[in-house]
Amino acid sequence: MDDFEVSCKGLFRALTIREKYMKLAYQRFPRTASQYLRNVEGESFKIEDQLQPDFTPLPKSGEDPFDFKTLPKNLGYVARMKEGLIYVYNDAAAADKHQPKDLPCPDYDTFIDDMNFLIALIAQGPTKTYTHRRLKFLMSKFNVHEMLNEMEEMKELKLNPHRDFYNCRKVDTHIHAAACMNQKHLLRFIKRSYRVDADRIVHKLNGKEVTMKALFESLHLHPYDLTVDSLDVHAGRQTFQRFDKFNAKYNPVGASELRDLYLKTENHINGEYFATIIKEVASDLEDAKYQYAEPRLSIYGCNPAEWTKLSGWFVKHRVFSPNLKWMIQVPRIYDIFRGRNFVPHFGKMLENIFLPVFQATIDPQSNPELSIFLKHVTGFDSVDDESKHSGHMFSTKSPKPEEWDIVKNPSYTYYIYYMYANIAVLNQLRRQRGMNTFLFRPHCGEAGAITHLLASFMTADNISHGLNLKKSPVLQYLYFLAQIPIAMSPLSNNSLFLEYAKNPLLEFHKKGLVVSLSTDDPMQFHYTKEPLMEEYAIAAQVFKLSTCDMCEIARNSVLQSAMSHEEKAHFLGTDYLKEGPEGNDIRKTNVAQVRMAYRFETLCYELNLIMEGLKAELHHIILYNNLVNLSINLVYSNEFLH
Amino acid sequence: MDDFEVSCKGLFRALTIREKYMKLAYQRFPRTASQYLRNVEGESFKIEDQLQPDFTPLPKSGEDPFDFKTLPKNLGYVARMKEGLIYVYNDAAAADKHQPKDLPCPDYDTFIDDMNFLIALIAQGPTKTYTHRRLKFLMSKFNVHEMLNEMEEMKELKLNPHRDFYNCRKVDTHIHAAACMNQKHLLRFIKRSYRVDADRIVHKLNGKEVTMKALFESLHLHPYDLTVDSLDVHAGRQTFQRFDKFNAKYNPVGASELRDLYLKTENHINGEYFATIIKEVASDLEDAKYQYAEPRLSIYGCNPAEWTKLSGWFVKHRVFSPNLKWMIQVPRIYDIFRGRNFVPHFGKMLENIFLPVFQATIDPQSNPELSIFLKHVTGFDSVDDESKHSGHMFSTKSPKPEEWDIVKNPSYTYYIYYMYANIAVLNQLRRQRGMNTFLFRPHCGEAGAITHLLASFMTADNISHGLNLKKSPVLQYLYFLAQIPIAMSPLSNNSLFLEYAKNPLLEFHKKGLVVSLSTDDPMQFHYTKEPLMEEYAIAAQVFKLSTCDMCEIARNSVLQSAMSHEEKAHFLGTDYLKEGPEGNDIRKTNVAQVRMAYRFETLCYELNLIMEGLKAELHHIILYNNLVNLSINLVYSNEFLH
Repeated sequence: MDDFEVSCKGLFRALTIREKYMKLAYQRFPRTASQYLRNVEGESFKIEDQLQPDFTPLPKSGEDPFDFKTLPKNLGYVARMKEGLIYVYNDAAAADKHQPKDLPCPDYDTFIDDMNFLIALIAQGPTKTYTHRRLKFLMSKFNVHEMLNEMEEMKELKLNPHRDFYNCRKVDTHIHAAACMNQKHLLRFIKRSYRVDADRIVHKLNGKEVTMKALFESLHLHPYDLTVDSLDVHAGRQTFQRFDKFNAKYNPVGASELRDLYLKTENHINGEYFATIIKEVASDLEDAKYQYAEPRLSIYGCNPAEWTKLSGWFVKHRVFSPNLKWMIQVPRIYDIFRGRNFVPHFGKMLENIFLPVFQATIDPQSNPELSIFLKHVTGFDSVDDESKHSGHMFSTKSPKPEEWDIVKNPSYTYYIYYMYANIAVLNQLRRQRGMNTFLFRPHCGEAGAITHLLASFMTADNISHGLNLKKSPVLQYLYFLAQIPIAMSPLSNNSLFLEYAKNPLLEFHKKGLVVSLSTDDPMQFHYTKEPLMEEYAIAAQVFKLSTCDMCEIARNSVLQSAMSHEEKAHFLGTDYLKEGPEGNDIRKTNVAQVRMAYRFETLCYELNLIMEGLKAELHHIILYNNLVNLSINLVYSNEFLH
Repeated sequence: MDDFEVSCKGLFRALTIREKYMKLAYQRFPRTASQYLRNVEGESFKIEDQLQPDFTPLPKSGEDPFDFKTLPKNLGYVARMKEGLIYVYNDAAAADKHQPKDLPCPDYDTFIDDMNFLIALIAQGPTKTYTHRRLKFLMSKFNVHEMLNEMEEMKELKLNPHRDFYNCRKVDTHIHAAACMNQKHLLRFIKRSYRVDADRIVHKLNGKEVTMKALFESLHLHPYDLTVDSLDVHAGRQTFQRFDKFNAKYNPVGASELRDLYLKTENHINGEYFATIIKEVASDLEDAKYQYAEPRLSIYGCNPAEWTKLSGWFVKHRVFSPNLKWMIQVPRIYDIFRGRNFVPHFGKMLENIFLPVFQATIDPQSNPELSIFLKHVTGFDSVDDESKHSGHMFSTKSPKPEEWDIVKNPSYTYYIYYMYANIAVLNQLRRQRGMNTFLFRPHCGEAGAITHLLASFMTADNISHGLNLKKSPVLQYLYFLAQIPIAMSPLSNNSLFLEYAKNPLLEFHKKGLVVSLSTDDPMQFHYTKEPLMEEYAIAAQVFKLSTCDMCEIARNSVLQSAMSHEEKAHFLGTDYLKEGPEGNDIRKTNVAQVRMAYRFETLCYELNLIMEGLKAELHHIILYNNLVNLSINLVYSNEFLH
């Protein structure tokens, strides 16, 4: 076998691995890639095989998003955790005998096998060379496309009535609820709350009730004097490469009491202020009309009552907006909980995170608030400082979660596998019941080892950050082939990990990776009243993006998001599930068809090359064709469409 | 004489030249530098000698800014142009004999002499070396200051109640009225105007009246379909290094008819739409409360009635806002007017620009609208593409303006001298009458020859752009010593002349040049609803500015601006005319006193060095002291203030 064939075989297998994991968990895998894979396998592709996640549609007019009455009945199943995975049984007897229902999930050994294959692949010389060359080619090809077709794209957009960048839908695909307001907003809110509620009991200290006035007095400050400087929640030069300092910025005036009072769902006032702030942010988005956000709320896994409390907060304060899609973030901080003896082992943490969701799925009426909340939850995120090295390498010899009782944190991959596996089983159960399913959308590749991006390639529907794809051509090329959406936050990176001008966003976008723009933490990073627009504006200015680029990124953000099928059809066009130009409705997206044709042809060309490689044709002939075809292709796509 | 003494002598003389020109024209020159100059000359410095420009204060509550009744009486003087300069005579008889009143102005030969001296200085080897080293030193010194005192500065700001970057006053020191709204605002306005006024007569074509509906029909478009893409007023990749394409962007949908209708003061509807748009922008600024702008309106010098028409527009539509300070921009396009035979020679253009202003100053009641308008005009700008090379070198042999009847444009310096000289005389006359005076604030150093920055060093109170100071260490150092404010617009530069990351703003700021941030043309460059905040936010992100940096830049913008003395005292503190920390009121500016002390000590140190050089002390001793002093100074400024 020559190098080219070796590479193609490896890339092909990598894609089939991802396809398998995506299917099991009701995550997405692109049609085009599936078609090519079936083609190689000599099978025919059926659209019905393309599984899609389910999201709760927006309530129809007059419908109450908090309506309990229609909750499905109890199935009577029993859910139990075993070796870090939740199993569902028909009844307690079956559970005792461990005769679970058939909700398949890639087991531990398979996962390790697949992972080991990918670890070898990304280090394999020929594949590294091949993918590096292809990526270089993709970059140059886009530059040629731009030179040839930029004015054509602009012409299409100018002729497209009503729609421009301002009224294209854009989703803030990565934002933390606790930092979703900007610093000025939080400051104003604190001042306002004090004017109204100075004498309200807002806190308990050693069993003693404390008024807001007394609380501020104990901190030796008066909200009237507060400024964004003294509030001190904004990242600055001090936070660069210092995730610890950045985390401390979540405490207004450095006081965790104020974080508890204003930015937590659980406190003496039942998270009322936090709910109000979020509803104000939502109301700003509704006014802006074309902007949406996917805020993350935390479930820590420290105790099993967290879900009940969080959903109680959600329902009590009716924290709902058509412009918000909710996600759950799970911080990877087992080591802290174990160190304080809050949990006996890692398995308990997983159980606290997933068992309540299984139970509410089996018997929704047993916990109606949680069941309502879960209808509005669209996915899970895994969060923390990726640059912390765990030292543990996930392998067949790793302890099972119930055996993991040391204080040391498991590795990123270990976390990811167990989150993925439980979500996969959960989604199968929920799909059977006609309930909405969850996407797995971890933070990944912001820093740390390249294996993070490998674990997510196997398990995640899409990721946030992805900076480290810079470091592995093989993974970068695979993320391109599988069109895995990446929510990038260059302003966040600029404050934490990577200077703005060095951000790979432009490079990824040019090569055809599916990137969207997101704010991460407006409280810490943004200055203006419209953080998402600020993010787009700065990217447009620094990277000199064209309108077509910006609208393509906005379209990517809607595709990546957990908006319901109905919303996506409304915002992108009814054929949005089709890939290539026929899936694009320029009247809604303002993305030029010339651009769509270029992207689709380019992707098919790369997939085709791999398939040709598998059919063992000669390397140099293909490369030769490759070059001849380029110029023809580019002019063709252009002529073809006019 | 050794090199050091040569440099010091040259720099000293350069400063005295600037001081002379500033005094004659009621432009500003810093106290500290004056004190040093007097010291060298063996004279004593008197604060009374520090001339200040006069700006009309804000109308008091109940006062009408358009009140005609209090206009001063006719002095009966006669004003006439001779050799490009307006002279004022007691009466027509004196005029015929050319016996002008004593309103001194540096004559042509003196100007050329001074200019030639400066041209030689900026090319002089020893001075180039000396200033280059001093600038390098200033840069390193600031970096050291930052490392030592950054946390101290932050601490001061945190302890400063009520005030933060958001409620510091900031002035958009350079913005063109015809592009002061953003593209989305203009688009909305056009759509709205069509909904209300479709049947209104808005245009005359070959004597035939045209309704708005017919006008849009003739352009084959309907405002309902219009988008920011088809409006096409935003700069993009196509405008880089193409000032011509950029200028064409002023035409919405590429149609000059729409520019006439929406962005001109003179048209069939008497500029009503343009006035309304500007008032909307003003109202947004008033709502934002802490933001101000200094928009430029054009006087072309094509015919003498321009001033009457422009002031008529201003008064008729009552285009007044406390948040706007007006300026007049004069495009350097004599060549176009001469080519079309609109003017017989350059002298006529100057006459059209200045004579009406002199006449309204002598006899305000003869043109009450113009007199009212002039009360609200704060200065003159000189604008056009600086990269166009004129070929002409201003010298004693240059033709006088009345003799300049060729189609070729005079050089930048020629324009600048004649604008400056007329403003100088005008300001003396106006000061005698107790009227407000005008600042000269040309566009300078955006592109083109380095001599532009030299001409402005002699004549301008402050400048816009200044990018080319990068290219001459001598001029850069002189701009630092004389603390000449520079309104920088990195986003504008990014679209036209220089990529954002390469913008010298950060470098200039660190070295201690007085820089402010301005938008230039929000219609072409900005995306959000708050263009000035967008400008600050992007600079803060890309250059990683600290809060103290941003507040210092905001403070610079107020100092640079033409806000009245009363406003400056209110926004910066009553002692704002004092230099150094005693002139700063941190409660109003949010600039740390540590920073102010650093800036002041650094400036004094550099001035002192020159004075020492003039006293012919030994070079190497001073340089030695220099190094020893640095560490002491920096720690001292810090200890001293706490």
